[in-house]
Amino acid sequence: MLKIDLNCDLGESFGNYKIGLDEEVIKYVSSANIACGFHASDPLVMQKTVLLAKNNGVAVGAHPGFPDLVGFGRRNINVSPAELKAMVIYQLGALDAFCRANKIRMQHVKPHGAMYNMAAKDEKLALAIAEGIGEFDSSLILLGLSGSQMLAAAQKTGLSFKKEVFADREYEEDGSLVARTKPGAMIESEEEAIERIIGMIRHGKVKAVTGKEISVEPDSVCVHGDNPKALNFVTSIVRRLSEEGIKIEAMGR
Amino acid sequence: MLKIDLNCDLGESFGNYKIGLDEEVIKYVSSANIACGFHASDPLVMQKTVLLAKNNGVAVGAHPGFPDLVGFGRRNINVSPAELKAMVIYQLGALDAFCRANKIRMQHVKPHGAMYNMAAKDEKLALAIAEGIGEFDSSLILLGLSGSQMLAAAQKTGLSFKKEVFADREYEEDGSLVARTKPGAMIESEEEAIERIIGMIRHGKVKAVTGKEISVEPDSVCVHGDNPKALNFVTSIVRRLSEEGIKIEAMGR
Amino acid sequence: MLKIDLNCDLGESFGNYKIGLDEEVIKYVSSANIACGFHASDPLVMQKTVLLAKNNGVAVGAHPGFPDLVGFGRRNINVSPAELKAMVIYQLGALDAFCRANKIRMQHVKPHGAMYNMAAKDEKLALAIAEGIGEFDSSLILLGLSGSQMLAAAQKTGLSFKKEVFADREYEEDGSLVARTKPGAMIESEEEAIERIIGMIRHGKVKAVTGKEISVEPDSVCVHGDNPKALNFVTSIVRRLSEEGIKIEAMGR
Amino acid sequence: MLKIDLNCDLGESFGNYKIGLDEEVIKYVSSANIACGFHASDPLVMQKTVLLAKNNGVAVGAHPGFPDLVGFGRRNINVSPAELKAMVIYQLGALDAFCRANKIRMQHVKPHGAMYNMAAKDEKLALAIAEGIGEFDSSLILLGLSGSQMLAAAQKTGLSFKKEVFADREYEEDGSLVARTKPGAMIESEEEAIERIIGMIRHGKVKAVTGKEISVEPDSVCVHGDNPKALNFVTSIVRRLSEEGIKIEAMGR
Repeated sequence: MLKIDLNCDLGESFGNYKIGLDEEVIKYVSSANIACGFHASDPLVMQKTVLLAKNNGVAVGAHPGFPDLVGFGRRNINVSPAELKAMVIYQLGALDAFCRANKIRMQHVKPHGAMYNMAAKDEKLALAIAEGIGEFDSSLILLGLSGSQMLAAAQKTGLSFKKEVFADREYEEDGSLVARTKPGAMIESEEEAIERIIGMIRHGKVKAVTGKEISVEPDSVCVHGDNPKALNFVTSIVRRLSEEGIKIEAMGR
Repeated sequence: MLKIDLNCDLGESFGNYKIGLDEEVIKYVSSANIACGFHASDPLVMQKTVLLAKNNGVAVGAHPGFPDLVGFGRRNINVSPAELKAMVIYQLGALDAFCRANKIRMQHVKPHGAMYNMAAKDEKLALAIAEGIGEFDSSLILLGLSGSQMLAAAQKTGLSFKKEVFADREYEEDGSLVARTKPGAMIESEEEAIERIIGMIRHGKVKAVTGKEISVEPDSVCVHGDNPKALNFVTSIVRRLSEEGIKIEAMGR
Repeated sequence: MLKIDLNCDLGESFGNYKIGLDEEVIKYVSSANIACGFHASDPLVMQKTVLLAKNNGVAVGAHPGFPDLVGFGRRNINVSPAELKAMVIYQLGALDAFCRANKIRMQHVKPHGAMYNMAAKDEKLALAIAEGIGEFDSSLILLGLSGSQMLAAAQKTGLSFKKEVFADREYEEDGSLVARTKPGAMIESEEEAIERIIGMIRHGKVKAVTGKEISVEPDSVCVHGDNPKALNFVTSIVRRLSEEGIKIEAMGR
Repeated sequence: MLKIDLNCDLGESFGNYKIGLDEEVIKYVSSANIACGFHASDPLVMQKTVLLAKNNGVAVGAHPGFPDLVGFGRRNINVSPAELKAMVIYQLGALDAFCRANKIRMQHVKPHGAMYNMAAKDEKLALAIAEGIGEFDSSLILLGLSGSQMLAAAQKTGLSFKKEVFADREYEEDGSLVARTKPGAMIESEEEAIERIIGMIRHGKVKAVTGKEISVEPDSVCVHGDNPKALNFVTSIVRRLSEEGIKIEAMGR
């Protein structure tokens, strides 16, 4: 039976500030990327989000980011590899503490925003992340972009790597994402996005922005739960996967 | 053979800001209370300090504080018990991550500054701290003031508790510290301070500020390494303990 | 002709986090208390909010708070008067910079949350705030609670003081607010709240929680724009003030 | 009579963390670049530093930086021009508030660290800074590197610009600094550094790292007061300037 993981960023509220329809979207996904207090979240939000994931049988992953709350971790910061490694270890430990307090195991790590994007292209930063994860707990899965430097770093350090795909993004021929700054980077049609996902899972193929068919091996699909439209898309994809007989299962199972 | 633990706050530097003679004082103490990034420290400093403790055979403890870097965690903040519990769990996990990365075990937890002082008197806050520690790792030792609410909370939650004494502070008859705001709260003479420590360890007695002799059962003596004078005091006490045949040993051994 | 000011907290969004229906509520109020980056807001939000106030002809006031973003400035912090004075001056300057850049004048200062509550009762903290305002710009109005230490501090330092009333809060006989922790502290009925406001403006009287009628001299009514219900209340009170022939005008005019 | 300004970064302490020999170096310089709370400093430190400058007759400038305390503002952050402009306005206002409270006028603005370096090369960022300064107070002087984008931005926005030179850095033939990462970027000999400064002031000439003589028009020399060696260099240069009959005077006089 075909199966796929659905991963979603969760727990990005902060103090008095609420973001995301966490209680809704949690019902549909299999893996939660939980913010760790640097780009978003705070200790109370982390506690609540880990418990929410546990209560919904959703696997927990750490979603470490840059220490840039006002920029939501989306601004590149030229950190050194040593700084990056330490900030990853710190955040893994912080989130893991709530896993321990709630008697569950952490499944994976997915870097956030600018950290994800920088590490996808920068060998040294990717290695710093992989080393940080490996030294903390070498049984954790690194979730990232296929073909990225993060995959190479995981292989180099002996870390498990799972590949995620994006339903709403166009791909270049080399498997990288079309930059958001380019026209046509986003897939606007929900229907088309779902068809692409089904094709990727079922046939390991997707059409690049150039029209050429390229190969992908998706372990997980990244979805969002920020707003009602995103939530609606998640329910549509879940329905369609069910119709296709594709099982939704956490990547670590 | 009589023995005692010497504990010292370490790893309170932050980014470009250096505090403390960590490399010096680490040679003399047996337990390090390492800041966790809320009132002081950052991920790189935590990594370096845990490694420093490991290399010197010094036991590592977490030193969680309030999220108040500009106030160095010394200003009371009226946090709720739920907030406090979550911020303790977060900080324990963060420091423990560096212990795991460096393949050592965390020994104890000593709250910092205002958190220590508030929890010494407030039953609910003390319980929040003890519960946070217990849910994270019930084998950790809580290090605090004898007779405080923290001791009561440790007993209530089944946590090990070790009592610390202060060489440079006067005591009230009930075993609490004379408030710093009162005249005569501090013992200025280094010699007298050391005599008091020896008396506490050897006979379980110390003279309160009123002149009355009271009982104490010290597991650990709190020392400082902020400045050359403090460091000099530490070397003096270590020398005197050696002369007395009192062994310095980490509280968890 | 009778007149009254309506003041509302605005500009409390932060980075990626949005709070408040600022664009809506700004149409109905005469004075905006704009957050200054300590308990909420960031430089971009401040710029946008000052411009929004200017474009709607609403007078701008600074809304300084404690440096406690995760607590939204609602947690008491035991700052020293010197610290408080400096943090008030800092925040006034920061907001004033956007007033200067947008070529408008700042009208008033209203401390936020825990700073407001602590200064209402603590003579030294109230004085620190008043001195900070006076040294920055002695023509600014301090907006606060009638009968509070802030009023006394304004009088002592020669600062203009305007009194605000709360439509949705019960009063004690001495004119202070019934603590939120007590039952019956809030007025739930929108109609009753509006009647009380009209009575306060027209007759300078309101019924305390004990039933006794007390005197009030409202210069401004504090309203909220956080949610649709609050916004609806603002439109109701504005309509009723209009029916009563009471003019809504910024306190500094 | 020849004259020159000496500028120095000051007020970079933070809370419990002390940096810099401010009380010493202030006696020798004519312009102080005072940190504004983003990369360093806090409201109390700003108040003390502005007062220190006033008491020593030293002109005050704002030293705005990126919101990156742990990185001391030295890490590039890819902020947008709108973000940068707003964060400059915010920091100018904050520092100016302490100038107003202390009844002195702000003289200049010198961006800090990564902000300085990025704006030296990036036209849009330089323009954002110049616009922010101009909208806040168009009489302020922008202090920066000769030949940089900041100079171009100042000219474009009608802002006064003063050029600073560095005694301890080698220059490329185009007048830019030799990158610190290159060998030989720093001038190690104190004597040589001072001779170069005298030559720049007296003849408008300095030898580039290639050996070719290039033209410079220094308005100000950047010196440091972080450590005893730096302080010693400042006293040496002051003595030599005096011997040469070159007057030390704030750039805005």
